[in-house]
Amino acid sequence: MDPRLKALFARRSVRRYTGAPVAEADLRALLEAAMAAPSARDLQPWRFVVVTGRERLDRLAGIHPYAQMLKTAGACIAVCGDRKVNADFWVQDCAAATENILVAAAMLGLGAVWLGVHPRAEREDALKQYLGLPEDFGLLCLIAVGHPAESPSPRTRYDPDKVRPENWGRTTGQDQNRRMET
Amino acid sequence: MDPRLKALFARRSVRRYTGAPVAEADLRALLEAAMAAPSARDLQPWRFVVVTGRERLDRLAGIHPYAQMLKTAGACIAVCGDRKVNADFWVQDCAAATENILVAAAMLGLGAVWLGVHPRAEREDALKQYLGLPEDFGLLCLIAVGHPAESPSPRTRYDPDKVRPENWGRTTGQDQNRRMET
Repeated sequence: MDPRLKALFARRSVRRYTGAPVAEADLRALLEAAMAAPSARDLQPWRFVVVTGRERLDRLAGIHPYAQMLKTAGACIAVCGDRKVNADFWVQDCAAATENILVAAAMLGLGAVWLGVHPRAEREDALKQYLGLPEDFGLLCLIAVGHPAESPSPRTRYDPDKVRPENWGRTTGQDQNRRMET
Repeated sequence: MDPRLKALFARRSVRRYTGAPVAEADLRALLEAAMAAPSARDLQPWRFVVVTGRERLDRLAGIHPYAQMLKTAGACIAVCGDRKVNADFWVQDCAAATENILVAAAMLGLGAVWLGVHPRAEREDALKQYLGLPEDFGLLCLIAVGHPAESPSPRTRYDPDKVRPENWGRTTGQDQNRRMET
Protein backbone atom coordinates (compact mmCIF):
# COMPACT_ATOMS: atom_id res chain seq x y z
CA MET A 1 0.00 0.00 0.00
CA ASP A 2 1.45 3.35 -1.03
CA PRO A 3 2.15 5.21 2.25
CA ARG A 4 1.16 8.53 0.66
CA LEU A 5 -2.44 7.30 0.52
CA LYS A 6 -2.76 5.97 4.06
CA ALA A 7 -5.76 8.22 4.75
CA LEU A 8 -7.70 6.31 2.09
CA PHE A 9 -6.62 2.85 3.23
CA ALA A 10 -7.62 3.80 6.78
CA ARG A 11 -11.25 4.10 5.73
CA ARG A 12 -12.82 0.85 6.84
CA SER A 13 -16.42 -0.09 7.54
CA VAL A 14 -16.90 0.38 11.28
CA ARG A 15 -20.07 -1.15 12.72
CA ARG A 16 -19.48 -0.93 16.49
CA TYR A 17 -19.64 2.37 18.35
CA THR A 18 -19.41 3.58 21.93
CA GLY A 19 -22.82 5.24 21.89
CA ALA A 20 -21.33 8.73 22.45
CA PRO A 21 -22.80 11.59 20.43
CA VAL A 22 -20.94 13.04 17.43
CA ALA A 23 -19.89 16.69 17.86
CA GLU A 24 -21.78 19.27 15.84
CA ALA A 25 -18.47 20.52 14.34
CA ASP A 26 -17.64 17.01 13.15
CA LEU A 27 -21.04 16.58 11.48
CA ARG A 28 -20.54 19.91 9.77
CA ALA A 29 -17.08 18.80 8.58
CA LEU A 30 -18.51 15.55 7.18
CA LEU A 31 -21.02 17.55 5.15
CA GLU A 32 -18.32 19.93 3.91
CA ALA A 33 -16.45 16.83 2.72
CA ALA A 34 -19.57 15.44 1.03
CA MET A 35 -20.14 18.65 -0.88
CA ALA A 36 -16.48 18.82 -1.94
CA ALA A 37 -17.15 15.84 -4.24
CA PRO A 38 -17.45 16.41 -7.97
CA SER A 39 -20.86 16.14 -9.64
CA ALA A 40 -21.95 15.84 -13.25
CA ARG A 41 -22.13 19.31 -14.82
CA ASP A 42 -21.59 20.62 -11.28
CA LEU A 43 -25.34 20.26 -10.63
CA GLN A 44 -24.88 19.01 -7.05
CA PRO A 45 -28.11 16.99 -6.84
CA TRP A 46 -27.26 15.76 -3.33
CA ARG A 47 -29.37 16.49 -0.26
CA PHE A 48 -28.72 15.31 3.29
CA VAL A 49 -30.88 14.50 6.29
CA VAL A 50 -28.83 14.30 9.49
CA VAL A 51 -30.53 12.24 12.19
CA THR A 52 -29.15 12.48 15.72
CA GLY A 53 -32.24 11.96 17.89
CA ARG A 54 -31.86 8.76 19.90
CA GLU A 55 -35.40 7.53 19.26
CA ARG A 56 -35.17 8.34 15.56
CA LEU A 57 -31.87 6.47 15.21
CA ASP A 58 -33.47 3.46 16.87
CA ARG A 59 -36.44 3.69 14.52
CA LEU A 60 -34.15 3.76 11.47
CA ALA A 61 -32.45 0.63 12.82
CA GLY A 62 -35.88 -1.02 12.75
CA ILE A 63 -36.67 0.02 9.17
CA HIS A 64 -33.40 -0.82 7.37
CA PRO A 65 -32.74 -4.57 7.53
CA TYR A 66 -28.98 -4.31 8.23
CA ALA A 67 -28.79 -1.24 10.44
CA GLN A 68 -28.66 -2.54 13.99
CA MET A 69 -25.46 -0.56 14.55
CA LEU A 70 -27.54 2.63 14.46
CA LYS A 71 -28.59 1.82 18.03
CA THR A 72 -25.12 2.82 19.23
CA ALA A 73 -24.31 5.34 16.49
CA GLY A 74 -24.20 9.03 17.28
CA ALA A 75 -25.66 10.08 13.95
CA CYS A 76 -27.07 8.84 10.69
CA ILE A 77 -26.64 10.78 7.46
CA ALA A 78 -29.21 9.95 4.80
CA VAL A 79 -27.69 10.72 1.38
CA CYS A 80 -30.45 11.70 -1.02
CA GLY A 81 -30.54 12.89 -4.60
CA ASP A 82 -33.04 15.26 -6.17
CA ARG A 83 -33.98 13.53 -9.42
CA LYS A 84 -35.41 16.81 -10.77
CA VAL A 85 -31.86 18.22 -10.65
CA ASN A 86 -30.19 15.30 -12.42
CA ALA A 87 -32.20 12.17 -13.06
CA ASP A 88 -29.39 10.36 -14.90
CA PHE A 89 -26.38 11.03 -12.67
CA TRP A 90 -27.73 11.47 -9.13
CA VAL A 91 -26.70 7.96 -8.07
CA GLN A 92 -23.04 8.38 -9.02
CA ASP A 93 -22.88 11.96 -7.70
CA CYS A 94 -24.34 10.88 -4.36
CA ALA A 95 -22.01 7.87 -4.23
CA ALA A 96 -18.99 10.17 -4.62
CA ALA A 97 -20.32 12.38 -1.82
CA THR A 98 -20.88 9.28 0.33
CA GLU A 99 -17.31 8.07 -0.19
CA ASN A 100 -16.02 11.50 0.80
CA ILE A 101 -18.04 11.33 4.04
CA LEU A 102 -16.59 7.90 4.83
CA VAL A 103 -13.01 8.99 4.19
CA ALA A 104 -13.60 12.17 6.19
CA ALA A 105 -15.00 10.18 9.12
CA ALA A 106 -11.81 8.13 9.28
CA MET A 107 -9.73 11.34 9.11
CA LEU A 108 -11.71 12.72 12.08
CA GLY A 109 -11.22 9.56 14.15
CA LEU A 110 -14.85 8.54 13.73
CA GLY A 111 -16.23 5.22 12.53
CA ALA A 112 -18.79 4.93 9.76
CA VAL A 113 -20.44 2.44 7.45
CA TRP A 114 -22.40 2.70 4.17
CA LEU A 115 -25.83 1.08 4.38
CA GLY A 116 -27.18 0.49 0.88
CA VAL A 117 -30.75 1.58 0.10
CA HIS A 118 -31.40 2.47 -3.57
CA PRO A 119 -32.35 0.57 -5.74
CA ARG A 120 -33.96 -1.77 -3.17
CA ALA A 121 -37.47 -0.35 -3.58
CA GLU A 122 -38.97 -1.67 -0.37
CA ARG A 123 -36.17 -0.19 1.76
CA GLU A 124 -36.13 3.06 -0.18
CA ASP A 125 -39.89 3.62 0.02
CA ALA A 126 -40.13 2.92 3.76
CA LEU A 127 -37.14 5.13 4.60
CA LYS A 128 -38.28 7.93 2.29
CA GLN A 129 -41.57 7.99 4.12
CA TYR A 130 -39.97 8.02 7.57
CA LEU A 131 -37.49 10.74 6.58
CA GLY A 132 -40.16 12.91 4.95
CA LEU A 133 -38.45 12.91 1.55
CA PRO A 134 -40.31 14.34 -1.45
CA GLU A 135 -41.48 11.94 -4.13
CA ASP A 136 -38.79 13.25 -6.51
CA PHE A 137 -35.93 12.35 -4.17
CA GLY A 138 -33.97 9.14 -4.39
CA LEU A 139 -32.37 7.79 -1.23
CA LEU A 140 -28.98 6.33 -2.09
CA CYS A 141 -27.93 5.16 1.35
CA LEU A 142 -27.76 5.73 5.06
CA ILE A 143 -24.38 6.34 6.69
CA ALA A 144 -24.06 5.32 10.34
CA VAL A 145 -21.52 7.49 12.18
CA GLY A 146 -20.20 7.03 15.69
CA HIS A 147 -17.21 6.89 17.97
CA PRO A 148 -15.53 3.62 17.06
CA ALA A 149 -15.55 0.64 19.41
CA GLU A 150 -13.49 -1.39 16.91
CA SER A 151 -10.46 -0.45 14.81
CA PRO A 152 -10.07 -2.49 11.63
CA SER A 153 -6.60 -2.21 10.07
CA PRO A 154 -5.96 -0.12 6.97
CA ARG A 155 -6.16 -2.15 3.78
CA THR A 156 -6.76 -2.23 0.06
CA ARG A 157 -8.43 -5.00 -1.88
CA TYR A 158 -6.06 -4.39 -4.80
CA ASP A 159 -6.36 -7.28 -7.22
CA PRO A 160 -4.19 -7.33 -10.37
CA ASP A 161 -6.78 -9.50 -12.15
CA LYS A 162 -9.15 -6.52 -12.14
CA VAL A 163 -6.75 -4.32 -14.14
CA ARG A 164 -5.74 -4.53 -17.80
CA PRO A 165 -3.56 -2.21 -19.88
CA GLU A 166 -4.89 -0.42 -22.96
CA ASN A 167 -7.75 -2.80 -23.80
CA TRP A 168 -9.76 -5.35 -21.80
CA GLY A 169 -9.97 -8.11 -24.40
CA ARG A 170 -6.81 -7.48 -26.37
CA THR A 171 -7.48 -9.58 -29.44
CA THR A 172 -11.14 -8.69 -29.64
CA GLY A 173 -10.30 -5.07 -28.92
CA GLN A 174 -7.72 -4.86 -31.69
CA ASP A 175 -10.17 -6.37 -34.14
CA GLN A 176 -12.69 -3.77 -33.05
CA ASN A 177 -10.15 -0.98 -33.47
CA ARG A 178 -9.40 -2.14 -36.97
CA ARG A 179 -13.08 -2.16 -37.71
CA MET A 180 -13.40 1.42 -36.39
CA GLU A 181 -10.50 2.53 -38.55
CA THR A 182 -11.99 1.22 -41.76
CA MET B 1 -13.41 24.33 5.70
CA ASP B 2 -12.28 22.00 8.45
CA PRO B 3 -8.44 21.91 8.23
CA ARG B 4 -8.40 18.23 9.19
CA LEU B 5 -9.98 17.40 5.82
CA LYS B 6 -7.76 19.48 3.57
CA ALA B 7 -6.80 16.43 1.51
CA LEU B 8 -10.44 16.15 0.41
CA PHE B 9 -10.92 19.85 -0.32
CA ALA B 10 -7.72 19.76 -2.42
CA ARG B 11 -9.34 17.37 -4.88
CA ARG B 12 -10.40 19.60 -7.75
CA SER B 13 -11.15 18.83 -11.39
CA VAL B 14 -7.89 19.45 -13.26
CA ARG B 15 -8.22 19.60 -17.04
CA ARG B 16 -4.81 20.95 -18.13
CA TYR B 17 -1.67 18.82 -17.98
CA THR B 18 1.97 19.15 -18.98
CA GLY B 19 1.93 16.10 -21.25
CA ALA B 20 4.46 14.22 -19.10
CA PRO B 21 3.81 10.52 -18.49
CA VAL B 22 2.46 9.28 -15.16
CA ALA B 23 4.85 7.00 -13.26
CA GLU B 24 3.97 3.31 -13.10
CA ALA B 25 4.14 3.46 -9.29
CA ASP B 26 1.61 6.30 -9.22
CA LEU B 27 -0.81 4.42 -11.47
CA ARG B 28 -0.48 1.41 -9.20
CA ALA B 29 -1.17 3.63 -6.16
CA LEU B 30 -4.30 5.08 -7.82
CA LEU B 31 -5.62 1.55 -8.38
CA GLU B 32 -4.84 0.57 -4.79
CA ALA B 33 -6.90 3.58 -3.73
CA ALA B 34 -9.75 2.61 -6.05
CA MET B 35 -9.91 -0.89 -4.63
CA ALA B 36 -9.83 0.42 -1.07
CA ALA B 37 -13.37 1.73 -1.59
CA PRO B 38 -16.28 -0.11 -0.02
CA SER B 39 -18.64 -2.11 -2.23
CA ALA B 40 -22.09 -3.59 -1.66
CA ARG B 41 -21.74 -6.99 0.01
CA ASP B 42 -17.99 -6.63 -0.66
CA LEU B 43 -18.54 -7.95 -4.19
CA GLN B 44 -16.04 -5.53 -5.80
CA PRO B 45 -17.66 -5.42 -9.25
CA TRP B 46 -15.11 -2.85 -10.47
CA ARG B 47 -12.70 -3.48 -13.33
CA PHE B 48 -10.14 -1.02 -14.75
CA VAL B 49 -8.56 -0.44 -18.13
CA VAL B 50 -5.48 1.79 -17.89
CA VAL B 51 -4.66 3.51 -21.16
CA THR B 52 -1.23 5.15 -21.47
CA GLY B 53 -0.43 4.78 -25.17
CA ARG B 54 -0.22 8.20 -26.79
CA GLU B 55 -2.21 7.24 -29.87
CA ARG B 56 -4.86 5.48 -27.81
CA LEU B 57 -5.28 8.50 -25.51
CA ASP B 58 -5.75 10.69 -28.56
CA ARG B 59 -8.32 8.26 -29.94
CA LEU B 60 -10.27 8.33 -26.68
CA ALA B 61 -10.28 12.13 -26.89
CA GLY B 62 -11.98 11.75 -30.24
CA ILE B 63 -14.65 9.34 -29.01
CA HIS B 64 -15.77 11.03 -25.76
CA PRO B 65 -17.31 14.44 -26.53
CA TYR B 66 -15.69 16.30 -23.59
CA ALA B 67 -12.29 14.65 -23.38
CA GLN B 68 -9.93 16.94 -25.27
CA MET B 69 -7.70 17.09 -22.18
CA LEU B 70 -6.74 13.46 -22.81
CA LYS B 71 -4.39 14.77 -25.52
CA THR B 72 -2.05 16.08 -22.82
CA ALA B 73 -2.93 13.54 -20.10
CA GLY B 74 -0.41 10.87 -19.14
CA ALA B 75 -3.05 8.21 -18.57
CA CYS B 76 -6.73 7.45 -18.72
CA ILE B 77 -8.37 5.03 -16.31
CA ALA B 78 -11.65 3.56 -17.57
CA VAL B 79 -13.75 2.55 -14.57
CA CYS B 80 -15.95 -0.39 -15.50
CA GLY B 81 -18.39 -2.57 -13.61
CA ASP B 82 -19.15 -6.23 -14.23
CA ARG B 83 -22.94 -6.38 -14.16
CA LYS B 84 -22.80 -10.15 -13.68
CA VAL B 85 -21.15 -9.52 -10.32
CA ASN B 86 -23.66 -6.93 -9.10
CA ALA B 87 -26.22 -5.61 -11.56
CA ASP B 88 -27.96 -3.38 -8.99
CA PHE B 89 -25.03 -1.71 -7.22
CA TRP B 90 -22.18 -1.55 -9.75
CA VAL B 91 -22.76 2.14 -10.50
CA GLN B 92 -22.46 3.27 -6.91
CA ASP B 93 -19.56 0.90 -6.16
CA CYS B 94 -17.66 2.16 -9.20
CA ALA B 95 -18.46 5.79 -8.30
CA ALA B 96 -16.93 5.28 -4.84
CA ALA B 97 -13.82 3.77 -6.43
CA THR B 98 -13.68 6.70 -8.86
CA GLU B 99 -13.83 9.25 -6.06
CA ASN B 100 -11.00 7.45 -4.27
CA ILE B 101 -8.87 7.67 -7.44
CA LEU B 102 -9.55 11.40 -7.71
CA VAL B 103 -8.68 12.06 -4.06
CA ALA B 104 -5.57 9.88 -4.38
CA ALA B 105 -4.44 11.75 -7.49
CA ALA B 106 -4.54 15.03 -5.57
CA MET B 107 -2.61 13.41 -2.69
CA LEU B 108 0.08 12.30 -5.18
CA GLY B 109 0.38 15.77 -6.73
CA LEU B 110 -1.36 14.67 -9.93
CA GLY B 111 -4.32 16.29 -11.64
CA ALA B 112 -7.40 14.36 -12.67
CA VAL B 113 -10.97 14.79 -13.87
CA TRP B 114 -14.05 12.55 -13.97
CA LEU B 115 -15.51 12.23 -17.48
CA GLY B 116 -19.05 10.89 -17.28
CA VAL B 117 -20.05 8.00 -19.55
CA HIS B 118 -22.84 5.75 -18.22
CA PRO B 119 -25.81 6.10 -18.70
CA ARG B 120 -25.21 8.05 -21.94
CA ALA B 121 -25.71 5.03 -24.23
CA GLU B 122 -24.03 6.41 -27.32
CA ARG B 123 -20.84 7.31 -25.42
CA GLU B 124 -20.87 4.07 -23.47
CA ASP B 125 -21.33 1.84 -26.53
CA ALA B 126 -18.60 3.51 -28.58
CA LEU B 127 -16.09 3.49 -25.72
CA LYS B 128 -16.92 -0.09 -24.74
CA GLN B 129 -16.15 -1.16 -28.28
CA TYR B 130 -12.86 0.75 -28.43
CA LEU B 131 -11.76 -0.55 -25.02
CA GLY B 132 -12.71 -4.15 -25.84
CA LEU B 133 -15.14 -4.43 -22.92
CA PRO B 134 -17.40 -7.49 -22.70
CA GLU B 135 -21.12 -7.02 -23.28
CA ASP B 136 -21.80 -7.54 -19.56
CA PHE B 137 -19.60 -4.64 -18.48
CA GLY B 138 -20.89 -1.17 -17.80
CA LEU B 139 -18.50 1.77 -18.29
CA LEU B 140 -19.12 4.30 -15.56
CA CYS B 141 -16.55 6.90 -16.58
CA LEU B 142 -13.13 7.76 -17.87
CA ILE B 143 -10.65 9.46 -15.56
CA ALA B 144 -8.02 11.65 -17.22
CA VAL B 145 -4.80 11.74 -15.18
CA GLY B 146 -1.75 13.91 -15.75
CA HIS B 147 0.82 16.23 -14.29
CA PRO B 148 -1.14 19.41 -13.57
CA ALA B 149 -0.62 22.58 -15.60
CA GLU B 150 -3.21 24.40 -13.46
CA SER B 151 -3.79 24.44 -9.68
CA PRO B 152 -7.35 25.22 -8.66
CA SER B 153 -7.67 26.17 -4.98
CA PRO B 154 -9.08 23.80 -2.39
CA ARG B 155 -12.80 24.28 -1.83
CA THR B 156 -16.09 22.82 -0.75
CA ARG B 157 -19.49 23.60 -2.22
CA TYR B 158 -21.06 23.32 1.25
CA ASP B 159 -24.57 24.70 1.12
CA PRO B 160 -26.70 24.76 4.28
CA ASP B 161 -29.88 24.66 2.19
CA LYS B 162 -29.00 21.10 1.17
CA VAL B 163 -29.01 19.83 4.78
CA ARG B 164 -31.93 19.28 7.15
CA PRO B 165 -31.98 17.80 10.64
CA GLU B 166 -34.01 14.70 11.46
CA ASN B 167 -36.58 14.93 8.65
CA TRP B 168 -36.64 16.65 5.26
CA GLY B 169 -40.21 17.90 5.34
CA ARG B 170 -40.69 18.37 9.03
CA THR B 171 -44.45 18.77 9.17
CA THR B 172 -45.12 16.15 6.55
CA GLY B 173 -42.55 13.90 8.13
CA GLN B 174 -44.07 14.13 11.58
CA ASP B 175 -47.47 13.32 10.17
CA GLN B 176 -45.98 10.31 8.47
CA ASN B 177 -44.28 9.20 11.65
CA ARG B 178 -47.55 9.39 13.49
CA ARG B 179 -49.15 7.35 10.76
CA MET B 180 -46.42 4.74 11.06
CA GLU B 181 -46.92 4.55 14.81
CA THR B 182 -50.60 3.82 14.59
